[in-house]
Amino acid sequence: MSKLIYDFSEGTKEDLDLLGGKGANLAEMTSLELPVPFGFTITTGACMDYLDTLCLSQDLLETIKQYVTLLENKTNKQFGATRNPLLVSVRSGSKFSMPGMMDTILNLGLNDQTVVALATATGNPAFAYDCYRRLIQMYADVVKGVDRSYFENYLDHYKKEHEYTEDNQLTGADWQRVTEAYQLIYMEHIKEKFPQDPFEQLTAAVQAVFASWNNPRAKTYRRLHQISDDLGTAVNIQAMVFGNTGEQSGTGVAFTRNPATGETGIFGEYLINAQGEDVVAGIRTPKEISQLQTEQPEVYHQFEKICTILEDHNRDMQDIEFTIENGELFILQTRNGKRTAKAAMKIAIDLAESGAITKQEALNRITPEMINQSLHPVFDEEALKTAEPLVSGLPASPGAATGKIYFTAAAAKDAHDAGEKVILLRQDTSPEDIEGMVVSEAIVTSRGGMTSHAAVVARGMGTCCIVGCEALEVDEFMKRAKTGDVVLEEGDVISVNGSSGKVYLGKIPTTLDNDFSKLSKILEWGLALGDLKVRANAETAEDIQTALKFGAAGIGLARTEHMFFGEERIWEMRKMILADTKASREQALANLEVFQIQDFREIFSLTAGLPCTIRLLDPPLHEFVPKEEDLKRAATETRKNLSDIRQRISELEEVNPMLGHRGCRLGVTYPEIYEMQTRAIIKAALEVSQEQNIQIIPEIMLPLISEKRELDFLREVLEKTIQEVFNEYNFATPYKIGSMLEIPRACLTADQLAENSDFFSFGTNDLTQLTYGFSRDDSVKFIPEYMEKHILANDPYQHLDTQGVGELMRTAVNKVKPLNQKISFGVCGEVGGDPASIAFLREIGVDYVSCSPYRIPAAILAVAQSSV
Amino acid sequence: MSKLIYDFSEGTKEDLDLLGGKGANLAEMTSLELPVPFGFTITTGACMDYLDTLCLSQDLLETIKQYVTLLENKTNKQFGATRNPLLVSVRSGSKFSMPGMMDTILNLGLNDQTVVALATATGNPAFAYDCYRRLIQMYADVVKGVDRSYFENYLDHYKKEHEYTEDNQLTGADWQRVTEAYQLIYMEHIKEKFPQDPFEQLTAAVQAVFASWNNPRAKTYRRLHQISDDLGTAVNIQAMVFGNTGEQSGTGVAFTRNPATGETGIFGEYLINAQGEDVVAGIRTPKEISQLQTEQPEVYHQFEKICTILEDHNRDMQDIEFTIENGELFILQTRNGKRTAKAAMKIAIDLAESGAITKQEALNRITPEMINQSLHPVFDEEALKTAEPLVSGLPASPGAATGKIYFTAAAAKDAHDAGEKVILLRQDTSPEDIEGMVVSEAIVTSRGGMTSHAAVVARGMGTCCIVGCEALEVDEFMKRAKTGDVVLEEGDVISVNGSSGKVYLGKIPTTLDNDFSKLSKILEWGLALGDLKVRANAETAEDIQTALKFGAAGIGLARTEHMFFGEERIWEMRKMILADTKASREQALANLEVFQIQDFREIFSLTAGLPCTIRLLDPPLHEFVPKEEDLKRAATETRKNLSDIRQRISELEEVNPMLGHRGCRLGVTYPEIYEMQTRAIIKAALEVSQEQNIQIIPEIMLPLISEKRELDFLREVLEKTIQEVFNEYNFATPYKIGSMLEIPRACLTADQLAENSDFFSFGTNDLTQLTYGFSRDDSVKFIPEYMEKHILANDPYQHLDTQGVGELMRTAVNKVKPLNQKISFGVCGEVGGDPASIAFLREIGVDYVSCSPYRIPAAILAVAQSSV
Repeated sequence: MSKLIYDFSEGTKEDLDLLGGKGANLAEMTSLELPVPFGFTITTGACMDYLDTLCLSQDLLETIKQYVTLLENKTNKQFGATRNPLLVSVRSGSKFSMPGMMDTILNLGLNDQTVVALATATGNPAFAYDCYRRLIQMYADVVKGVDRSYFENYLDHYKKEHEYTEDNQLTGADWQRVTEAYQLIYMEHIKEKFPQDPFEQLTAAVQAVFASWNNPRAKTYRRLHQISDDLGTAVNIQAMVFGNTGEQSGTGVAFTRNPATGETGIFGEYLINAQGEDVVAGIRTPKEISQLQTEQPEVYHQFEKICTILEDHNRDMQDIEFTIENGELFILQTRNGKRTAKAAMKIAIDLAESGAITKQEALNRITPEMINQSLHPVFDEEALKTAEPLVSGLPASPGAATGKIYFTAAAAKDAHDAGEKVILLRQDTSPEDIEGMVVSEAIVTSRGGMTSHAAVVARGMGTCCIVGCEALEVDEFMKRAKTGDVVLEEGDVISVNGSSGKVYLGKIPTTLDNDFSKLSKILEWGLALGDLKVRANAETAEDIQTALKFGAAGIGLARTEHMFFGEERIWEMRKMILADTKASREQALANLEVFQIQDFREIFSLTAGLPCTIRLLDPPLHEFVPKEEDLKRAATETRKNLSDIRQRISELEEVNPMLGHRGCRLGVTYPEIYEMQTRAIIKAALEVSQEQNIQIIPEIMLPLISEKRELDFLREVLEKTIQEVFNEYNFATPYKIGSMLEIPRACLTADQLAENSDFFSFGTNDLTQLTYGFSRDDSVKFIPEYMEKHILANDPYQHLDTQGVGELMRTAVNKVKPLNQKISFGVCGEVGGDPASIAFLREIGVDYVSCSPYRIPAAILAVAQSSV
Repeated sequence: MSKLIYDFSEGTKEDLDLLGGKGANLAEMTSLELPVPFGFTITTGACMDYLDTLCLSQDLLETIKQYVTLLENKTNKQFGATRNPLLVSVRSGSKFSMPGMMDTILNLGLNDQTVVALATATGNPAFAYDCYRRLIQMYADVVKGVDRSYFENYLDHYKKEHEYTEDNQLTGADWQRVTEAYQLIYMEHIKEKFPQDPFEQLTAAVQAVFASWNNPRAKTYRRLHQISDDLGTAVNIQAMVFGNTGEQSGTGVAFTRNPATGETGIFGEYLINAQGEDVVAGIRTPKEISQLQTEQPEVYHQFEKICTILEDHNRDMQDIEFTIENGELFILQTRNGKRTAKAAMKIAIDLAESGAITKQEALNRITPEMINQSLHPVFDEEALKTAEPLVSGLPASPGAATGKIYFTAAAAKDAHDAGEKVILLRQDTSPEDIEGMVVSEAIVTSRGGMTSHAAVVARGMGTCCIVGCEALEVDEFMKRAKTGDVVLEEGDVISVNGSSGKVYLGKIPTTLDNDFSKLSKILEWGLALGDLKVRANAETAEDIQTALKFGAAGIGLARTEHMFFGEERIWEMRKMILADTKASREQALANLEVFQIQDFREIFSLTAGLPCTIRLLDPPLHEFVPKEEDLKRAATETRKNLSDIRQRISELEEVNPMLGHRGCRLGVTYPEIYEMQTRAIIKAALEVSQEQNIQIIPEIMLPLISEKRELDFLREVLEKTIQEVFNEYNFATPYKIGSMLEIPRACLTADQLAENSDFFSFGTNDLTQLTYGFSRDDSVKFIPEYMEKHILANDPYQHLDTQGVGELMRTAVNKVKPLNQKISFGVCGEVGGDPASIAFLREIGVDYVSCSPYRIPAAILAVAQSSV
C-alpha cells in the first residue's frame, strides 16, 4: 500500500503529483531547514481513494492520528488540550492552482475549553474568541454548507445594537457572546451541536476538501483548462502560528528584489502584533522591511539569509510570507514573485549575467507581452485605478494615448499639422484614411475585428488602436459619436488604452518604460538562440528602419497596394482603372511605374541585400475607385462623362469582395498591371545593386494563387517582362518568383505549384478566413459569443488554428519538402508575429515568419523560446 | 523489327494503337469482306521513328514500294502508268480524332502524262484536269506550305476574265490552262517543278502527315485533351474510286436507322454521276436512298446487306459513305452515326431489347445531356438556323421558351395572371422574386454565374434560364434593357434558349420531344444497375412529386429558408428579426412554427417514410429584412420608429455575407430559431407517422459547421427540444442529427465531428467557394477569361474540382470511415447532379447524391454508367 501521508520533512518539490503544489513547496522549504511551522500533507492518492468510496478509510484515519501525534511532539503542544492547545489549519493543494475548490479552514482544534486556554496563553480573549467564531463560521460554511450570511447578519446586528462600527471595537466579552450566538445558529441549521471533538473537526474538514474536488466550479475550471479529473487534491495540515501575540510578534510580505524595477535588495513591509489579514486590510500602515533591521536585528538577519537561500534555490526572485511569533521567525510561503515587464527583463538579464540561470532560461522568463509592453507607453497605474472607462472594444494594438478626437483623416491631419495630438475616431478605416492614421496618437473604430484594416495598419505602425467599440455610435458625417447619454464632439479629449481595449474621457497621464539596452540584449540573445528567421511586413522607409533596428532578417511582405494611395498615385491608379483604351491605360501605368521604381529602390537600398519579398497588387480594383466627392474630378481627368464613370464603378462592385476579383486574378485579367510592377521591381534591383555593388535577389510574390495553371500563366508573363528589362539594362540579377499559400486549394495542390514556384509564403489571414468560412470584417458579430460559449478558445486570427488551418499548412509543407528541399516556406499573416503560434510553425517546418515591425521583438523572443 | 505497313486485309479494329482509328476501321471492313477500295496503312510506329530521325528510313521506303506493287496487282492499275493509272489518297489517322493535323491529299499519282490517261479513261477532261489542279493546290499547301490563296486568287481571276460564275462552267480546256498556271505558281514559290514522279509525291505526302503530328495546333489540342505526344499518327494510302465516271456511277451517305427518330430502316441519299463533295455542296438535289432500289436493284440489295452486316458487327446504328463506280459498290467509311437525343434513346432501348447489347451498354450509349434535352422543349431546328441571337449568357438551365419580358416579379405575376406567357428579365434575382420566377417561362439575368440564385432556383424548377448576359444593360427601375442599339421594353417578345445560352428577339417555334415511356425505361434500368442512391433537393410539394416520379430515393436537402418567403411568413420572420424583447421574438417564432409544422407534414406525407434530410435556417438574417418600400409597414407591425428599424437593418449588413453571420452561427447566437424549427420537424414527424402508421426518421442537418464544439452546443440544444416534444406528445421516434461538410475546416476535422454527427452531407457549392476563394456571385467576372486562357478547364461549380475540393472530401471520408462505418455521406451541392462528378464521388465512398428534381434522371443515368 502506498504512503498516505508525508510529513513536511519527508517530501520534496519533486513530489508535486503526490503532495500538490502547496505541500511540495512546504516540504521543499522544510528540507532546506527553513523555519516552516510543522505539518504534514495527505496525498492526492488518498483523495482519489476517498472519491472512489466516499468515505475516509480506517487506515487513513489512523495515519492522521499518528501524524497529529508527531505534530504534537514537534510543537510541544497538544491537540484539544486545555493548556497550550495545538491549533491547525487545513488547506487544499492540487498540482495546479484551481479556483472553485474548498480553500482553507483555520484554527481547527478550538472548542469551548481550548478557547479559554488560548485566551489565557495569549492574554487576549478578544483574539481567542474571534478565532473561535471564525472557525465556527468557516466550518459551517465549507464543511456543512451553511450560508455565511446567517453569521454575518448576526454580527452586523450585534454591532449595530452596541453602536460598534469596526470589528476591532468588540471586546473579548463581546466576541464570547457572538461565539455563543454562532453556536446557536449552527445548531439551528445542522440540528446538532458544533463539534467539540478536535478530531471530528479535523476529519470532517479533510473530507470536505476531498469532496470539493468534484464540485461544479472546480469541474468546469478543469474542463476549460484541460486538467485531468484524475489528479485529485492533497490536504495540508499545519500548526497555526500567530503574529498577534504581542510586541515581539508580527507578520509581513517581502520580495527578494524590487518587483517594480528589478533592482536588487529586499523589498517589502510588515506589521507588529498583527495577523496576515491585517496587512491586507490596510487598517494600520505597515512599516518598511528595512525597519525590522532596527527593531529585531536578529530576526532581520535571519530573514535576509532565508531570502538568499530561497532565491538561490528557486533561481528566481521570491515573494515570501512570514510571521514572527514571540520573536521566532516562521516562513509560511514562498513563490516566484509577480513583477512588471521592466523588472522581469532586468531580473532575467541580471540572473543570467550572474550565472544563476542560462540565457535560454532568461528568455523563457520573459513573456512576449512584456516585450510589447516595454515598446509602448502605458497609463500611470495609480491614475487608472480611479478612471472609469467610457466604452470598451477589442485591444487591437497596444499602447496608451491621449488626444483630441477627429472623425475624418483630413481633419485629423489638419489638426496634427496645427500641432495637436489627435485621435482618429471612425466607424472603420479604409486605405484612403492612411494619412490621417499616420499622424494619429491612437485609432478607435466602432466596427471591425482584430484584423480589420484599422487594426492591421495600427499594429504595423505600432500605433495604439481599439476596434469594434460596438457600443459607440459614430456618425462621421455629423462629426459626433454617442454612447448612452455621452456625446463626443470633434476636439473632445479622450484617452485610449490599446492594451486593455478601454476608452476614457479626458486625459490620463502616461509613462514610457522603454529601456532599449535591455530589449536589445534580449533580442541579441534571442537571435543567437532562435533557429527560425523573423522578417518584417513592411514597405515604408520608417517601418523598414524600425524592423531592421529590431533585428529583422529581411522583408517577408512588402504590400505594393499601400503604395498607391498617395494623392498623385491614386489618381494615376484611377485613370488606369477607368481607361477605355489600351493607350490611356498604358499611359497611366507608365506614370505609376516611375513611382514604383522609387518605392522599390528605397526598399532595396535600406535592406542592402537582405531578402525582400514583394507582393504584387492584391486588393480588388474597387478599393481604388473615386468616391462620390471625387467623381467630378475623375470625369475631368479621364475626359469621360459622369454616368460612364458611375457605370464602371458599379461594374466593379462585388457581393463578397473577399472572394472576388483580386489578387493574381487581376494579374491574369490585366497582365499589364503585373508587368508594370515587375518591371519596376527588376529595374530598381538592377540599379541599386549596381550603385551599391551588392547582390540583390528580388522575390516577387503572387497573391491568391489557387491553381497551377494560374501560376504557370503568370510566371510566363513575369519572366518575359524580366528578360526585357535585363535586355534593356544589359545586366541581369538572380530573382525568385513565388506563390502565396492563402487559399485552401493552393495548400492542397502545393506539390503541383512547387514545379513553378521558387518559394512559398503562407498568408494565414486569408487562409483562416477561407478555412473557417469566417470573414474578418463580419465575424466580429459572432466571435465574442463563440468565445463566451467556449465554442472557440481563441480568436483564430490571433492564434493559429492548428487543427484546421495548421493542418492545411502541414499538408502543403509535407507535399513539397520531399520533392524539393530548397523551396522555403514563410508565414506573413498576423499569426507570424504571434508567440503562441510560432512553436507550431517551427514544428511543421516553416523557415521564417514575417510580422509587422513592432511585433518583431516578441516574435524573436518566441522563436528563441520554442527553439530549445 | 516490327512491321511497318499493314495491308487493309492484314489488320483488325483491335490494332487501333498501331493503325489509328481510320486504318483500323478500313481493315475491319476489309476483314468483313466488304467492298472497300484496296489500300494499306503505315503504322504509328513508323511515324514515331520518323519523328526521332526526321527522315523516312530506307526500310520504310522499300516497304511502301512493295505495298504499292501489291495495290497495283489488286486494282489491276499501275501507279504512274499512262494507261489506266492508279491514283491514291493519303490520309492521316491517329488513335483519337485530332483537328489540326494534315488531313487528306487526293489524286496522288497524277502528272502531266497520267492526267491525259485519266481524261481518256473517264471521257471527262474537265474532271481529270480539275483533279490535277486540286492535287497541285493541296500538295503545295500541305506538303510545301504555300498559302492556298495564291491558287484561289488565280482561279477567281481566271473565272472573272472568262465571265464564269461557277466552277462547273469551266471546260476541260479551261481546267488544263488553270493547271498549267498552277504549276507556274508552284514553281515560283518552291523554285522547282511540281513533282512528276508519283513516288516522290507519295513519299513527300507521307512525310508531311508524319510531321504534322508535331504542328502547334495538334500539340495544343493534345495538351488540352490530355492525349499523349507519344502515340503518333498512322497514314492510310488507298486506291481512288470515282462516282462521277457516268450514269452507272454515283455517291451517297446513309444511316442504318433514322437518326432523327431512331426508327428502323435505311435512311439516306445519293447522287448519280457525282463525287462526295457534290453531295455536300448541295448543287444538285440528291435522291432518297429508296430510289436506288429501282435504279440499281442489285447494288441496293448489296448495300442493304452491308448495312445489316455493319450494324450487327458494330452493334450500333451506322453512318456509311459509299461510292458506285461503273455499277460497282465501294464502301468508303462507316462510323457510329450521330443522332438526336430522341433517336439515341430509342435506338439504345431497341438494341438492348433485341439482345444486341446489354442494358448496361444501352445506358452507356445515352448521355446525360440527352436525358436533359428530352425533359425540356427545344426550338425548332430549322427556325434556329436563320435566327440571329441578340445576346448570349451562361446556359444556366436548359429548355426553350418564348414570352413577353417583365422586369419585376410583381409585373411578371400580374401579366401571368392575365394569361400571358412571361419571361422575367432582371439584373439578378433574390428570394423575394420567387413568385415571379415560378410563373415565368424563362428567367434571364444580366449578372450572376451558374450557381447564382436565379440559376439554382430555375434548375430546381426545371425552368429555362440564362444568367450573366453581361452585354445586356438592365434598368429595372426604368423597365428597360439595352444592348448595342437595341432597346427592350416591358412586354417585348423574346425567345430564350437555356441550352445554348442565347437570347433571340421575337418568337421562335418550339417542339417538345418528351416520350416519358422511354425515359422511364431508362430510369428503371438505371436504378436497377446503380449502386449509389439519388435523392432530391426539394421542399415544395410540386418539386417533391416530380422528384419521386423520376425515382428519387428520398430528400437529400430540404431548404427551410425557402419556406419563409411567403407573404405572411416573411412578416413573421421580419418581426422576429426586429424584435427587441424576448416575448415579441417568441410570439413571432410561435407563429412561424405553425407554418413550419405544415411544411414538414407535407414533406413527410409525400415521401411516406423515405429518408428526408431537412436543413435548418442557413442564410444571413439580412436576406429577410424589409426593403425600403416595406419600412413603413415594418414600423407599424413592430411598433418601432423608422430610424430604429433602419439602425437594426444597418447592423445586419455585412461586407462579405458569404463568410458572415449565417448557417449554424445563427443557431448558436439565436438558439430559439433552431429550437422552433426542430420542434416543428419532430411534431410533424410524430403526427404523420401516427396518422399513416409508418416509421419516419427525420434527419436534421446543421449547415456551416466548422468546429466540433459548435456541433456539440447545437446538438445539446436540439436534443433538449426533441425530448420536450416527445414528452408533450408522449410518443417518440428515432431521429438523426447531422452536419453539412461545406467548410474546409469541417472536412479537415470530420473525425472529431463524427463523434456527434449521425450523418454528413457535403455542400459542394460553399465548399468550392471556400476552397478556391471564389465567390459564386463575383467570379463570373473572371471565370470566362480563366476558361479562355485554359487556366480553368471547367467551371468548378458545375464539375467537381477533384484535386482541391475533392481532396478535402476524400480526406473527410477517409478520416471518418475507419472510426464509424455507419455514418453516411451525401452530396447536396450542384455537382451532386453532375454526371461528370458522380464517378469521383462513388470512388471516394459517398453513399448518395442529391440534386434538383429535373437533374435526377441524368444523375440516375450517370450513377448507373459509373457503377460497372
